[in-house]
Amino acid sequence: MPSATDDDATEQTVTPWDVEGADGGGIDYAKLVRDFGCSTIENGMIERIERLTGTRAHPFLRRGQFFAHRELDVILNAYEKGERFYLYTGRGPSSESLHLGHLIPFHFTKWLQDAFKVPLVIQLTDDEKFLWKDLELEECERLARENAKDIIACGFDPKRTFIFSDVSYMSTPMYKNMMKIAKCVTLNQVKGIFGFTGESNIGQVGFPPTQAAPSFPDCFPHMFGESKTSLRCLIPCAIDQDPYFRMTRDVAPRIGGYKPALIESRFFPALKGENGKMSASDATSAIYVTDTPKEIKSKVNKYAFSGGQQTVEDHRRLGGNLDTDISWKWLNFFLDDDEELAKIGEEYSSGRMLSGEIKAKLIDVLTPICVGHQEARAKVTDELIDEFMSTRPRVYASLFGDMGDVAGALDEATIANAKPGVAIGAPAIEIKQKKGLLKAQTGEDGGAISKNQLKKMMKEKQKAEEKAAKAAAKAANAEGA
Amino acid sequence: MPSATDDDATEQTVTPWDVEGADGGGIDYAKLVRDFGCSTIENGMIERIERLTGTRAHPFLRRGQFFAHRELDVILNAYEKGERFYLYTGRGPSSESLHLGHLIPFHFTKWLQDAFKVPLVIQLTDDEKFLWKDLELEECERLARENAKDIIACGFDPKRTFIFSDVSYMSTPMYKNMMKIAKCVTLNQVKGIFGFTGESNIGQVGFPPTQAAPSFPDCFPHMFGESKTSLRCLIPCAIDQDPYFRMTRDVAPRIGGYKPALIESRFFPALKGENGKMSASDATSAIYVTDTPKEIKSKVNKYAFSGGQQTVEDHRRLGGNLDTDISWKWLNFFLDDDEELAKIGEEYSSGRMLSGEIKAKLIDVLTPICVGHQEARAKVTDELIDEFMSTRPRVYASLFGDMGDVAGALDEATIANAKPGVAIGAPAIEIKQKKGLLKAQTGEDGGAISKNQLKKMMKEKQKAEEKAAKAAAKAANAEGA
Repeated sequence: MPSATDDDATEQTVTPWDVEGADGGGIDYAKLVRDFGCSTIENGMIERIERLTGTRAHPFLRRGQFFAHRELDVILNAYEKGERFYLYTGRGPSSESLHLGHLIPFHFTKWLQDAFKVPLVIQLTDDEKFLWKDLELEECERLARENAKDIIACGFDPKRTFIFSDVSYMSTPMYKNMMKIAKCVTLNQVKGIFGFTGESNIGQVGFPPTQAAPSFPDCFPHMFGESKTSLRCLIPCAIDQDPYFRMTRDVAPRIGGYKPALIESRFFPALKGENGKMSASDATSAIYVTDTPKEIKSKVNKYAFSGGQQTVEDHRRLGGNLDTDISWKWLNFFLDDDEELAKIGEEYSSGRMLSGEIKAKLIDVLTPICVGHQEARAKVTDELIDEFMSTRPRVYASLFGDMGDVAGALDEATIANAKPGVAIGAPAIEIKQKKGLLKAQTGEDGGAISKNQLKKMMKEKQKAEEKAAKAAAKAANAEGA
Repeated sequence: MPSATDDDATEQTVTPWDVEGADGGGIDYAKLVRDFGCSTIENGMIERIERLTGTRAHPFLRRGQFFAHRELDVILNAYEKGERFYLYTGRGPSSESLHLGHLIPFHFTKWLQDAFKVPLVIQLTDDEKFLWKDLELEECERLARENAKDIIACGFDPKRTFIFSDVSYMSTPMYKNMMKIAKCVTLNQVKGIFGFTGESNIGQVGFPPTQAAPSFPDCFPHMFGESKTSLRCLIPCAIDQDPYFRMTRDVAPRIGGYKPALIESRFFPALKGENGKMSASDATSAIYVTDTPKEIKSKVNKYAFSGGQQTVEDHRRLGGNLDTDISWKWLNFFLDDDEELAKIGEEYSSGRMLSGEIKAKLIDVLTPICVGHQEARAKVTDELIDEFMSTRPRVYASLFGDMGDVAGALDEATIANAKPGVAIGAPAIEIKQKKGLLKAQTGEDGGAISKNQLKKMMKEKQKAEEKAAKAAAKAANAEGA
């Protein structure tokens, strides 16, 4: 739940590179939602997601870790009508050692992928980390591939998932989107949104379109074909990434695309206490996914900020403070069993459960998560990474719903006949962008369309549908063979 | 020759997008050379080029149209010692109709390629034109391909020449160089160099590294291999492009590359009189390469600014003014015969030759140039454009000197065995860039190298040489087979 604090004595800072609460305290999420202009996810929306997907909501959603959104309702409306969408998330690979907080968007995204049965693209911003950190570019490229292993270990479906690094994937479709976005954004605007200064390097100033671009499906012709409006995009991310996508949403209608929707999380609290994000550079502030059971035990016992009282007597009398206790907060993330969690909350806050006991419980929960991750990561082969990062054209239909292994059933001739580099059976023809047509077409605010324009649009749509039907028939034939 | 005027009453402006003389007059090239900090090409240097190449200097060089340089002497020293270099030039494709001024850098570059027997890369900045002009990106891509036809019609050797557009070629090697350059340049710096403002779009602000990148050979692994220091680069261009390469030269040692050398031209004077460049948007200011003989005749007679006198009597008495007469100036560009040119100058300035007569001579000279260009362009097939723009790996050795058709003689097996996408036999291993090593290695200003660093460098160099020798032997075997 959003914190009730609303003290503006000193401002909080939340940018993609800097997260700090007012007066060095915790983040005021209610204020953040107001300042950014996004919306809070209400219970009705969570229930609707459960109804539409036939899946119980993920704990991160039930318990408000993913707490804010932009136009998630638009995605749900479209999904309800049978429209398709894709997921887009990412990571900046600045370190080999991921901590538990890094896994959160990926675990949640995996749940979204499984629940909605949709494709997913994952961007590794090796270029961004190079531009912002004192790292060689080649080191960032290496880290991107190392991080891909951790991401794959979260269990994504390789048939529906494309992982790419900006440096390794940089190509005409990505670059065209980057340029179209960049033309719509002025230097003054990015200074306002991202706080760039005269001392910022021009790679940084030019970077926002690179993170914005994957919001448009034609960045990935091998996944989604060449149309910019074939699919809507939903982005799960931490709320510090919101500025990138506010900018993207402003630009989208001007380049003929849909505004991406967002589902946004709070920051994962640091082991030593909640004020912003965990730090990868302070080893005692985080549990790393590489930590051994012994390290986990030792770190939780030593460093996990406790909301317990100074003496056992005081604790029995006053109870533990759930508002500050990190073990409690982390259990809220990682303990799946709602009943057990509620019981722990009651026991601990009433003083019946001691600080050492709630820490022991957390250790019990975290250890199998880390060990499981390590086992899964060890099984990630170079071949599997290559499969996730491959730009071979996919069979479009196989990316959605319960289509099963359509790709595997296709014969080589069908694949060879498709347009090189383009997903087989994807909506191929983009309705030509006319300046006056743009807003109307993307449903942004319903400008008028002339009769001739409409005729042309219908014709092009028909042509595209015929082409798609032909390709689908071909694919179906091949499947039967 | 540089103009003698040095009146600073109002400043002249020369940027890649804006060329204007002080008080709307002609460009003061002497001042430009001083302000930019480049050097004038002296006769001794021209004679040295003739000696080294065994080729008579091109009229553009003999007559001072290419009049300034940066470190051309370094290129000549290296060439004399048997070192190799490559040429890099480009064009911004904002229009289908090239005028004669647009051909100048290409005709001169072709002469350089033939004289030094070196490879050449030609960048078409379709992204730049999109970012600066009111054009769709797809239109800029189309114009790039149309302009490639005109460039090819200038007679470049397809075996040694790679033509690319930024949008179509955008790829990992280009992007890596762009990012490395971008990290070294601050927003304040590009504001100072290029005059960007808060209203500039961030594509523009981020663009300079895109034009800088091709100065480094590892942007083109299929031509030059993967080393950043295998080759020096010489850039023939008009002097308004100097700001890009001043920036590039500042950055080069910091990213472990050679500073590119430059050979720079004056602006081609407009038909209606010399003040800056010709304008593609004013049809009467230029002769287009598509103009018919009739159009050329009519335009020269109607619009070519004349330095002749008002009446025949005055003209016979006072003579034509060579300083302002456009026919005379254009003949200096396009009439190859030095003796004939000198005679025309004498006849016209003495008043024996009339304005109509010098115009008739210019028409005689321009007509076959345009007709010849049109014939050559008509012969440029789609297949030939694809050949020039192809990223198939070249045989490195075949790009230089009198190696003949090495590529044609290679069998498929040899090509298949080479590293995918990398030129066969190119220097493959880049000596690892260590921060302290950088300056010393690129010879920028001779920092100290430790014994261990030196040992490592020698070892790596030896390894690279062995690898190159092996690849060369393989290629030679294949040639013999």
